[in-house]
Amino acid sequence: MLDLEAAGIGDGISEVIVTTKSAAGKPNAAPIGIISESTEEGERRYFVKLYRGSQTLANVLATGKLAANVTTDAVLFVETAFDDLSAACFTEFAGLPVLAEANAWIVFTSKLVEERPQYLRVQLCSAAVKINRKEVRAINRGLNAVIEATVLATRLRIVTEKREREVQRKELERYAAIVAKCGGLRENQALEILRERLFKDAPV
Amino acid sequence: MLDLEAAGIGDGISEVIVTTKSAAGKPNAAPIGIISESTEEGERRYFVKLYRGSQTLANVLATGKLAANVTTDAVLFVETAFDDLSAACFTEFAGLPVLAEANAWIVFTSKLVEERPQYLRVQLCSAAVKINRKEVRAINRGLNAVIEATVLATRLRIVTEKREREVQRKELERYAAIVAKCGGLRENQALEILRERLFKDAPV
Repeated sequence: MLDLEAAGIGDGISEVIVTTKSAAGKPNAAPIGIISESTEEGERRYFVKLYRGSQTLANVLATGKLAANVTTDAVLFVETAFDDLSAACFTEFAGLPVLAEANAWIVFTSKLVEERPQYLRVQLCSAAVKINRKEVRAINRGLNAVIEATVLATRLRIVTEKREREVQRKELERYAAIVAKCGGLRENQALEILRERLFKDAPV
Repeated sequence: MLDLEAAGIGDGISEVIVTTKSAAGKPNAAPIGIISESTEEGERRYFVKLYRGSQTLANVLATGKLAANVTTDAVLFVETAFDDLSAACFTEFAGLPVLAEANAWIVFTSKLVEERPQYLRVQLCSAAVKINRKEVRAINRGLNAVIEATVLATRLRIVTEKREREVQRKELERYAAIVAKCGGLRENQALEILRERLFKDAPV
């Protein structure tokens, strides 16, 4: 097993951009958490939940692999949650499309281990790792808030009950306030994109 | 001006552990945000708000300097928010105590620029930078939740109104749920420490 800790995949859930390609070769990118679990013998195992109906699941079923792109760019998380990235964002690594700007790439082969009503649980086995850029980066609460707001916004789109939406919207504004106070340029750009997408897809 | 971006201090507010020493030489550590602002000419300026009554403020007024320790260790944020660190955690850099485990150190000289009822605003001028360790690290929502919970817990200690405390406690449990789901070992240890401190200092 390759050393994934050095490539940014620690214990717990690592939030990355997963890139895949369709049977026809079309690239796709979506934010997904890589779940790391330790066996009783201390061996690390990696999983993802791939939701039914998602392009990522269709591509993984078609090709049997996916790439994890490790990045701390707030804009990439928001864009890939809502839109297709332009072809210029991708390059290739070990036969898969990957994000040119990512700090590290890990290509995994996939094995279906569990079928649930809403998602399939897939075990990952690392096949190739490339570290592009190591850095020192202080924690930015604005970046954190963009990630939480993106998770929430993804849910907001599928919530139809008006009162529940109101609660979530209020929560979203709390995250927006943290981004405005603590975020840098990329975090503020990300929030702007998130607002546009939410109002476009789900006017209240 | 030294390149602070490479040492992890980006735009917006960078959450770091600030270390200082008293006139008698005793080290202190506390989590603080380094505020980065750009002038109209595009020049970066750095500030901190130092709260009245804090050891950090007393030490900065006594010595005229502080060190920013860049780290992503959840436990360090929680410990320094509530406790004094043991002497073994510190080493020395450019005449100041710094955290041995930090990824980067920046020593700043300080200049008081504004007095407010609750805090003093201090401008920082970098004097020495040392990068110890560059890394690739995926975003972990558990780490983010520990930081938010620590910010909240610090406020919780000074809130006395019972109803308001209940609201904050509920919010804290939401962060705890994210740590339990997404955090790794250090994030879960940090949450454990945070719970102990909160119950010790403020039983409800």
